[in-house]
Amino acid sequence: MIKPIDPRLKSWIPVDKNCDFPIQNLPYGIFKTAGNKPCVCVAIGDQVLNLAAVAKLGYFNQLKFDTKVFSKDSLNDFISLGQPVWRAVRNRIFNLLNADREELRDNVEARKKVLLPMNEVELLLPVKIGDYTDFYSSIDHATNMGKMFRDPANALLPNWKHIPVGYHGRASSIIVSGTNFHRPKGQTKPADAENPVFGPSKLLDFELETAFIIGKPTRLGETVSTDKADDHIFGMVLLNDWSARDIQSWEYVPLGPFLSKNFASTISPWVVTLDALEPFRTEGYKQEPKVLPYLEYSGKKNIDITLEVFIQPAGQQPHKICTSNYKYMYWVMEQQLAHHTVNGCNINIGDLMASGTISGPEEGSFGSMMEITWRGTKPIRLPDGSERKFINDGDTVLIKGYSVKNGVRIGFGECKATVLPAT
Amino acid sequence: MIKPIDPRLKSWIPVDKNCDFPIQNLPYGIFKTAGNKPCVCVAIGDQVLNLAAVAKLGYFNQLKFDTKVFSKDSLNDFISLGQPVWRAVRNRIFNLLNADREELRDNVEARKKVLLPMNEVELLLPVKIGDYTDFYSSIDHATNMGKMFRDPANALLPNWKHIPVGYHGRASSIIVSGTNFHRPKGQTKPADAENPVFGPSKLLDFELETAFIIGKPTRLGETVSTDKADDHIFGMVLLNDWSARDIQSWEYVPLGPFLSKNFASTISPWVVTLDALEPFRTEGYKQEPKVLPYLEYSGKKNIDITLEVFIQPAGQQPHKICTSNYKYMYWVMEQQLAHHTVNGCNINIGDLMASGTISGPEEGSFGSMMEITWRGTKPIRLPDGSERKFINDGDTVLIKGYSVKNGVRIGFGECKATVLPAT
Repeated sequence: MIKPIDPRLKSWIPVDKNCDFPIQNLPYGIFKTAGNKPCVCVAIGDQVLNLAAVAKLGYFNQLKFDTKVFSKDSLNDFISLGQPVWRAVRNRIFNLLNADREELRDNVEARKKVLLPMNEVELLLPVKIGDYTDFYSSIDHATNMGKMFRDPANALLPNWKHIPVGYHGRASSIIVSGTNFHRPKGQTKPADAENPVFGPSKLLDFELETAFIIGKPTRLGETVSTDKADDHIFGMVLLNDWSARDIQSWEYVPLGPFLSKNFASTISPWVVTLDALEPFRTEGYKQEPKVLPYLEYSGKKNIDITLEVFIQPAGQQPHKICTSNYKYMYWVMEQQLAHHTVNGCNINIGDLMASGTISGPEEGSFGSMMEITWRGTKPIRLPDGSERKFINDGDTVLIKGYSVKNGVRIGFGECKATVLPAT
Repeated sequence: MIKPIDPRLKSWIPVDKNCDFPIQNLPYGIFKTAGNKPCVCVAIGDQVLNLAAVAKLGYFNQLKFDTKVFSKDSLNDFISLGQPVWRAVRNRIFNLLNADREELRDNVEARKKVLLPMNEVELLLPVKIGDYTDFYSSIDHATNMGKMFRDPANALLPNWKHIPVGYHGRASSIIVSGTNFHRPKGQTKPADAENPVFGPSKLLDFELETAFIIGKPTRLGETVSTDKADDHIFGMVLLNDWSARDIQSWEYVPLGPFLSKNFASTISPWVVTLDALEPFRTEGYKQEPKVLPYLEYSGKKNIDITLEVFIQPAGQQPHKICTSNYKYMYWVMEQQLAHHTVNGCNINIGDLMASGTISGPEEGSFGSMMEITWRGTKPIRLPDGSERKFINDGDTVLIKGYSVKNGVRIGFGECKATVLPAT
């Protein structure tokens, strides 16, 4: 593992203490300005650093890789250069932005060419996603769902503590934060009706998730062990796995969720690297019963990432409705990846693998409206006096995620979208 | 709909009467020869017609499209030119191969440059598949599975006749016919064991399926009606949805099949266009109860395609174990696509949407070992005297598919793979 950047170090670019993007973070994204082609960038403070422009000025010349990867509309080509290049680039950007280094700091002309205010650029989907997998790895979430829909005394299904349960999702409808979408329509079966009906979903929900992005591929037949898994992970994003609960409950037997999920899944534009998150590794749940050997791992593999969800009705301020944490995951990314490949399933650069809804053990930490309002039986009240059982038209759902330690805050920016009325 | 090619017409290339590829078919594929880059081709008799070479000789000049699409390693760029170009190209190739036309027939030098024996080329995966969806649309298959695993008296789940049930599959592990793979390993839970065990699957099965390839994309939020669906379909392939039944039964609740399916799915190298299949359209099952309006359709939407499965143990001849037909589908492609997009889910060129196992009403027409041997209770005997409940190491499973009418046979070639021992 690369040595984390010293928490005392500062950039010559001012970074507010509540900002997600200090010099210790350097998350990757894809940005665009009017009339120009998309390029790779990193976030620093309230600016984006245009890596294609940095490359053009020769600042990466010593690294000997093809910097055309920065003039692309996804991170995939950059990622495909491999972990040593990711780390060399991270290290080089760190030096360029370090307050103690004059190379870029004192070159006013160069700074003008490579830095742009973040609020003046459009941030695009950061990766071309080949396959999208969604796990179901939060024990508190799975327990809540089991209590509500199955048997409170036996909330977890028999396989849950043996398998990081997961399923395939739809890659085409993954959208970047800020892309709004229309409430989905579909078939639902009212409890009192003989036949299903068609119309807009009445139970639209969010799901608080994170996801990791594959950075190193495998071939069909290869497996990835838990101790090599981190080598295959480029970084993480926030994810809102929007869910139409009424469509889901009617369609999901026997093959799982389909149209209830694939109308939109929102991810954050910033990919935070595993290297930036390394200082926040922490212990996870003790796994009992013992898992099969291919799922065993050593060391701290959970990560302390505070996750918050806000609802923002049209014209209102965002109102926080939940604070959860990535450390509540029962199954960690390394186990998810080992499981996913243990049958020889191949993975590709840009594949996205999501956590599943991340709920904590207490009520305030539940990661979906289904759990927060306990199936709609305990509505929440917003500051404007309105009630929510699920998500209304016009509501924006905003997810934030950040880790804090030694005065350094490593964050993901925003993952948000507004629900427009059904067409 | 384009006018079908007259069944009486012949190519100047000799085509055996049992060959899948007469001039009325002209299926598309991607081929490669040693030392050369992959190109687009069509099958004709026992030859492949190299469309990049045809273009280079100027035979497509009058059509005014960028023929670079034929020098690619997938059909996607060609498909993206749209249905009018597909049809113009089909028509042009038909004229070039028509026995009555001298243009290519009498140009010996040109023929040498554009035709290659099919058995001397390598056929590759024909499309870059973005998302892969698998439906569950054969009523006889769903009924068989329900009888075996749920309730013989209520074999179909309540949603089955209202929804073309489907789920997302893994695109990365879709392989072209001829690509062998190792028996998958995974977790299974023996009935008499307290805990799951890990090892090679003991119940490896095939699933007889077809799949269609998206030819025209939609944007997020758009829907496709049943009567416009055919405009979005480029063509069809054969598909073997390999399934590890013991892994499946342990993992699949509550989110559906995952590692039991995503280790390999085999497709045929040839994409047969909807235009070539049009003469074989036929009536389907009467849908009772009546479906919701967005799933209604008019006209004949089933297709009479004979589907055969063979098992070929190492060193033996293929032995036919099943004859089914695509006409047994309860839910047709047009309904599947209307359903898939009714919530606004966007589709992309190259997306693959599979039928689900296609079983007919009689025993000899069941499309999986699970059904043929009725969960292993009625093993079949092969000509070498060996028994099969499921698929053994060294077995090749071969699927064929073809439509015959007025002496014309429109076929898909072979969809086959050999199961190698677990690593």
